[in-house]
Amino acid sequence: MRLYLASTSPARLATLRAAGVAPVLLSSGVDEEAVAAAAGPLDGAGLVSLLARAKAEAVTGALVDGAPIDGVILGGDSAFELDGQLYGKPHLPHVARERWLAQRGRTGLLHSGHWLIDHRGGHQGRAVGGVSTASVTFADISDAEIDAYVATGEPLQVAGAFTIDSLGAAFISRVEGDPHAVVGLSVALLRELLLEFDIPWPSMWNRL
Amino acid sequence: MRLYLASTSPARLATLRAAGVAPVLLSSGVDEEAVAAAAGPLDGAGLVSLLARAKAEAVTGALVDGAPIDGVILGGDSAFELDGQLYGKPHLPHVARERWLAQRGRTGLLHSGHWLIDHRGGHQGRAVGGVSTASVTFADISDAEIDAYVATGEPLQVAGAFTIDSLGAAFISRVEGDPHAVVGLSVALLRELLLEFDIPWPSMWNRL
Repeated sequence: MRLYLASTSPARLATLRAAGVAPVLLSSGVDEEAVAAAAGPLDGAGLVSLLARAKAEAVTGALVDGAPIDGVILGGDSAFELDGQLYGKPHLPHVARERWLAQRGRTGLLHSGHWLIDHRGGHQGRAVGGVSTASVTFADISDAEIDAYVATGEPLQVAGAFTIDSLGAAFISRVEGDPHAVVGLSVALLRELLLEFDIPWPSMWNRL
Repeated sequence: MRLYLASTSPARLATLRAAGVAPVLLSSGVDEEAVAAAAGPLDGAGLVSLLARAKAEAVTGALVDGAPIDGVILGGDSAFELDGQLYGKPHLPHVARERWLAQRGRTGLLHSGHWLIDHRGGHQGRAVGGVSTASVTFADISDAEIDAYVATGEPLQVAGAFTIDSLGAAFISRVEGDPHAVVGLSVALLRELLLEFDIPWPSMWNRL
C-alpha cells in the first residue's frame, strides 16, 4: 500500500520515515492564506482540518510517473494556539523573539489536522479526517537562550516558533497528547484513519 | 563545552544529536543487574537514578585520546512500569508478545534517570541527578498488529517492548510528560541539570 503525502514539510516526512513508511511526496501548491481567508473565522481545529483537506484534494488528479495515484493520499496542516490566538510561522527574527518572550514558561496547544483520501486503483473513493491536539509547555528560558535560539534560524520557519524534534527540544518541558502531533503528523491518528478504509497499519511499512 | 555520554543507547545518542549536541560516547560496562541486586528493592525512579549514577561514575577515570575527561559526564537509564511492576527489555519474541497483550489500550510510566558529573578541567567536581517520568498510553492494537510488530524485532531490545521514535510510533496514542524521557533522555531536564553548574544550554550546541 502506497502513501502519498500532500505536504512538503520535512518534519512530517521524517516522522513517517521513522515510523517505517516512506511516502511519495507531492507538493499541493495550495495558497493557505487564500483558503483560510475564503473560509472566514475558524478555530484552530477547524483551520487545520480545512487546510489538510485542501492540500489532499489538490493532488488527487496528480500523475506520478505518468500514472494516476494508486494508494492513499494524506494532507496535513498545523497551527499553534496560545491564549486563544492562532500563530503560524514567525518568518522574521524579531517576531520569533516576541513569541518566545510571550510563551516561555507557559502552555499552548498544537493542532495538527489530517485528511486521508482513499485513491486505490487510481479512483477517488471515501475520505476521512481528524485533528490531534497536544498541549505544549515551554521551559522558562532566559533572554540569552531566546536570542541564541532565534539566531540559529530554526524557529523562523515553524508554527509557534519552536520544534520539539530538533534544537527546540531542550526548551519544551512537557507535552500532553500525541508528541507526533506536535511535529505535525500524529502517526497514531493516521493508523486509526487507515482502519476506516480497512487498511492495517503494518501493511504500510515499506522501510523496516 | 563537551558532553560525555556514558551510555551506548542509540536512541539517547539520536536524541542528543537532534537537539544539537554531538556527545563523546563512552561505554560504562556497568553490570546493571548486579548493581540493582546489590541495592535491594527500589521503585522505578530509584532504580533508574541508581543505574544512571553508576554508569556516569564508572567512566570518570576514562581517558579519551590519552587525556582525562574535560567536560560534563551524563549517565542515563530507563525502566517501564505497568501496574506497579517494572519491566526491562523483553529480549524474546514471546515475552514481547505477552507484554503487548497486557499493555495495549492501557497506560504505563516510563522513568528516565539522569546523572550529571562536572568533570571540567579533568577533575571530578559536583554531581546532580534527576528523574523524568512520562505516562504512555498505548493504542488498543490487534493481535495481528502485535505479531507484525514483534516480527520486526524492534520491541525485543527496548524497555517496555515499545519505541515512540521508530516503528512503535503508531501504537502510542498519548504521552503526558517530556516525550524525550520516553526515548530515555529528557533534553529539558538535562538543560536544567547543566544550569546547576552554570552551564547555559546553547553553549552545548556543537552541531547546528
